[in-house]
Amino acid sequence: MRRVDVIDTAAAITRETVEGRHVLVMDVLRATSTIVTALNNGAKRIIPVETVEEAVALKRRCADSLLGGERGGVRPEGFDFGNSPLEYSKDAVQNKTIVLTTTNGTRALVGCQSAHAATIGCAGFLNGKAAVRRLTAKTGDLALVCAGTKDRFSLDDFLCAGMLLQQIMAEEEVQMADLGWNALLLYQAYGESLPAVLDNAKHYQVLKGLGFHEDLEYCLMKNQLEIAPVFDGNEIRID
Amino acid sequence: MRRVDVIDTAAAITRETVEGRHVLVMDVLRATSTIVTALNNGAKRIIPVETVEEAVALKRRCADSLLGGERGGVRPEGFDFGNSPLEYSKDAVQNKTIVLTTTNGTRALVGCQSAHAATIGCAGFLNGKAAVRRLTAKTGDLALVCAGTKDRFSLDDFLCAGMLLQQIMAEEEVQMADLGWNALLLYQAYGESLPAVLDNAKHYQVLKGLGFHEDLEYCLMKNQLEIAPVFDGNEIRID
Repeated sequence: MRRVDVIDTAAAITRETVEGRHVLVMDVLRATSTIVTALNNGAKRIIPVETVEEAVALKRRCADSLLGGERGGVRPEGFDFGNSPLEYSKDAVQNKTIVLTTTNGTRALVGCQSAHAATIGCAGFLNGKAAVRRLTAKTGDLALVCAGTKDRFSLDDFLCAGMLLQQIMAEEEVQMADLGWNALLLYQAYGESLPAVLDNAKHYQVLKGLGFHEDLEYCLMKNQLEIAPVFDGNEIRID
Repeated sequence: MRRVDVIDTAAAITRETVEGRHVLVMDVLRATSTIVTALNNGAKRIIPVETVEEAVALKRRCADSLLGGERGGVRPEGFDFGNSPLEYSKDAVQNKTIVLTTTNGTRALVGCQSAHAATIGCAGFLNGKAAVRRLTAKTGDLALVCAGTKDRFSLDDFLCAGMLLQQIMAEEEVQMADLGWNALLLYQAYGESLPAVLDNAKHYQVLKGLGFHEDLEYCLMKNQLEIAPVFDGNEIRID
């Protein structure tokens, strides 16, 4: 029976919790939702970087790349895209390399890499089933990594961990600590009323205040995308 | 509107989260349940200490004191009591000083003291209402500190935090981070089925395996005791 642990913020990623495991990183609002959408719409690859300066420098070296991301929820000056998944349409991204810089999602992806995860997948509500299927096809323990918001617990990512756990446990028995049970139980109780429940959550409120209503509605749709991207080397791709 | 934050393990206690706040410490299984029971049954005071050696040394200096506590859930050799609240009967504890050493509860109490909490109350399901009433009578922000188990998230303490939040929010509006919403929502969904839900929890399982069925049943009873003990200086008392 494999172990599945939930890690509730990027700050809680350690070698003890992640090394050698297959992990799924979730930053539902909005980095991983944006990543899976852009790749589903035909982007060739996503290169996540930590700072706006790195993103700009990288674009200078890769002439055909586009810049995406946010600071404080909004698009940095000179960027091609913000962090709204709905901007990453087929027309805009097909066959493009996208250099993406977001605060929490990038930190979680890079954190899992530094902590020597065996596989690093990207997941959200949008592609939960496909993301789980790709990882459970492998042998070994799993970790579900919630990016959180500025190193704090974020309800949206945690509820997504609950959905992924429910999907995993529909197929196999697992060993799990209390934090995993918390995520699963919370999702079982509130998975059918995500918008109402998340209306209490801080980051959801921030994005609502910035006018991103359509993003919120979109990012909470379940299992719409049949893709399971993986972060490997320095890029995220479908295969 | 005051802030109420939930702290999910003793390891997460910091000055930033606790300094100047009125806090309630919960170690439902079983330290704080034992503390409130012993004081309710007439014990004069409880002195929490971190090690078995300290406890023994302190008993040598206070001839009329009794030793209580656990290591790995069981009573250390030569102790008068284990950590089962049901042992602390009126006959056994009336007017006595009890030196108590438990792993997680003591660490949380001492941690809040080091982090300069303004008030440190002891709470469990057993005395939730009374404990909340004493703290909300004061002005200022609150923190609900789950002791956890060996610095890990423990579902029993977290559900108790949810019950306390529900009691607080029945009386006043508060500001709360996502972790608080998690505790509240979890309790709202599962507060009426605690034994079934906690049967998944690790520490509950350990105690069940050790045969402490009556303790488990007792510690999950709600609002049975009308006392609100406070840890001040080096002892816990009712007033």
